Amino acid sequence: MTLPMVVPAPNLPARVRIHEVGARDGLQNEKTTVPTEVKAEFIRRLAAAGLTTIEATSFVHPRWVPQLADAEDLYPQVSDLPVRLPVLVPNERGLDRALALGARQVAVFASATESFAKANLNRTVDEALAMFEPVVARARAENASVRGYLSMCFGDPWEGPVPVAQVVRVCRALLDMGCDELSLGDTIGVATAGHVRRLLVELNEASVPTSALAVHFHDTYGQALANTYAALEHGVTTVDASAGGLGGCPFAKSATGNLATEDLVWMLQGLGIETGVDLAGLVTTSTWMADRLGRPSPSRTVRALSHQDSEESAESQEP
Amino acid sequence: MTLPMVVPAPNLPARVRIHEVGARDGLQNEKTTVPTEVKAEFIRRLAAAGLTTIEATSFVHPRWVPQLADAEDLYPQVSDLPVRLPVLVPNERGLDRALALGARQVAVFASATESFAKANLNRTVDEALAMFEPVVARARAENASVRGYLSMCFGDPWEGPVPVAQVVRVCRALLDMGCDELSLGDTIGVATAGHVRRLLVELNEASVPTSALAVHFHDTYGQALANTYAALEHGVTTVDASAGGLGGCPFAKSATGNLATEDLVWMLQGLGIETGVDLAGLVTTSTWMADRLGRPSPSRTVRALSHQDSEESAESQEP
Repeated sequence: MTLPMVVPAPNLPARVRIHEVGARDGLQNEKTTVPTEVKAEFIRRLAAAGLTTIEATSFVHPRWVPQLADAEDLYPQVSDLPVRLPVLVPNERGLDRALALGARQVAVFASATESFAKANLNRTVDEALAMFEPVVARARAENASVRGYLSMCFGDPWEGPVPVAQVVRVCRALLDMGCDELSLGDTIGVATAGHVRRLLVELNEASVPTSALAVHFHDTYGQALANTYAALEHGVTTVDASAGGLGGCPFAKSATGNLATEDLVWMLQGLGIETGVDLAGLVTTSTWMADRLGRPSPSRTVRALSHQDSEESAESQEP
Repeated sequence: MTLPMVVPAPNLPARVRIHEVGARDGLQNEKTTVPTEVKAEFIRRLAAAGLTTIEATSFVHPRWVPQLADAEDLYPQVSDLPVRLPVLVPNERGLDRALALGARQVAVFASATESFAKANLNRTVDEALAMFEPVVARARAENASVRGYLSMCFGDPWEGPVPVAQVVRVCRALLDMGCDELSLGDTIGVATAGHVRRLLVELNEASVPTSALAVHFHDTYGQALANTYAALEHGVTTVDASAGGLGGCPFAKSATGNLATEDLVWMLQGLGIETGVDLAGLVTTSTWMADRLGRPSPSRTVRALSHQDSEESAESQEP
């Protein structure tokens, strides 16, 4: 299998932890119900490929995200895996359900913008934070770690560009209420590298430790990997990605939403940055999952590597 | 139309010149003949969108690249445009044809590897350089500028990873014979950001001026834009890209070969780097060309922006 030549660059982390979101973020918008057994197998294959943090599902009300309504059935099928299996919890009821099944990594999801807080949670930003406060406190009291997702950190479909200071304020609030980690989400994919850098610099100035930050880029405008590279240059060591690029834009069949884990691993491997992931195993997993979903993976790396056996990769090369 | 928030980053160029290759590199592998009038209209639309360097065609023997066999017909249809219109010339015969039509920007194409030199030119690397020497000399004597394309600068399908020193040697030879500009091609798309940086550093140490360099990345593994960002950080100010991402891999219908100009412009615009390109006009052009070719553009930015009018971009946003 073709692999990149390893050439490290200065001032990048030695190791990156990939927070794999394919089984949750990647599947949540699927219109056709994915059988619970397929989800469990997907998660087991991801773990076998070396991913150590695999977001498993969401304990939101089934009405909100019907595709993940089987959380209670799914979680016990994978909870013996020797990996972190964070789950989304929207409120105390969701937290109760997750804790009862033994989950010890949970995630809440806040918004950097009023419009999205209203659309997604039917609350103001501060009302949503107030809702999460007892959830985070209870989780911490039960020795669960808490990730805080923050949506719309760069742009918002209703409000346009999002002021950096507004994002910093909500990050600070999430950390102050006890979140261990913050995932900075570019939900609509509009961020560019300088914008990423600016947010990281201002978070640093607001005493938010970079070690507590993850980045979560969408590839709507093709920027996800360049943005990730910029984030690595500024000290970020946790990156969210979705196996096979699962999690589509609504408007194009194979258009990608999330950064594809394989494209990320290709870059990190070339940079000599440790991830623990076996790229061949991951590509096989994503190809398997693409077959289950009935459409090709939008990941460039999955496409390239999964076709190499059957095609002359040398043909049709021109200057 | 959605546009990125402008947030410059330090130590990046103020302006980037995009060398648009869609009409040549993008179309050369098309199986169905694209009418000359469509190519001319494509080039005119690219110029109207603000691109100032538009590679028009190739004066190779028609047997090699049948799609570009109409170079003699096409060039005069666009030569009045107030833009640079470089053309590929493989040898003195091709140069004669180009000069006779008034072309004053030409490009030769060398290989960094013996295997590709053999496959593409049926010569050794040095034999190919020797073949280009009189072409470059004649072109310079006629006041034509000469770009030297260098293929397989990072990896080669037969040889695997390509030693940086080998690339530096051929770059030096191309410059010494009189090339004004070198385009460093990652023909099979395997490069990662540290590899790009290493090559640029070693070229610099070999007294190759960064101002004479362009980068030409393929997106086979999703790395093209991250690699471009790394190149900009190391002083490169000329970037090759293909409108709409034209120029496919052989093995997947909408898989991309070349970096899409729109995805590049999105990044540069977000970084506050001048290009002179009107993104909306460019997207319209690529959508028009995609309709001519009968398949959607693989450019993320084209897909996102060309669907925004008809879809609620706000729907289906989840944390």
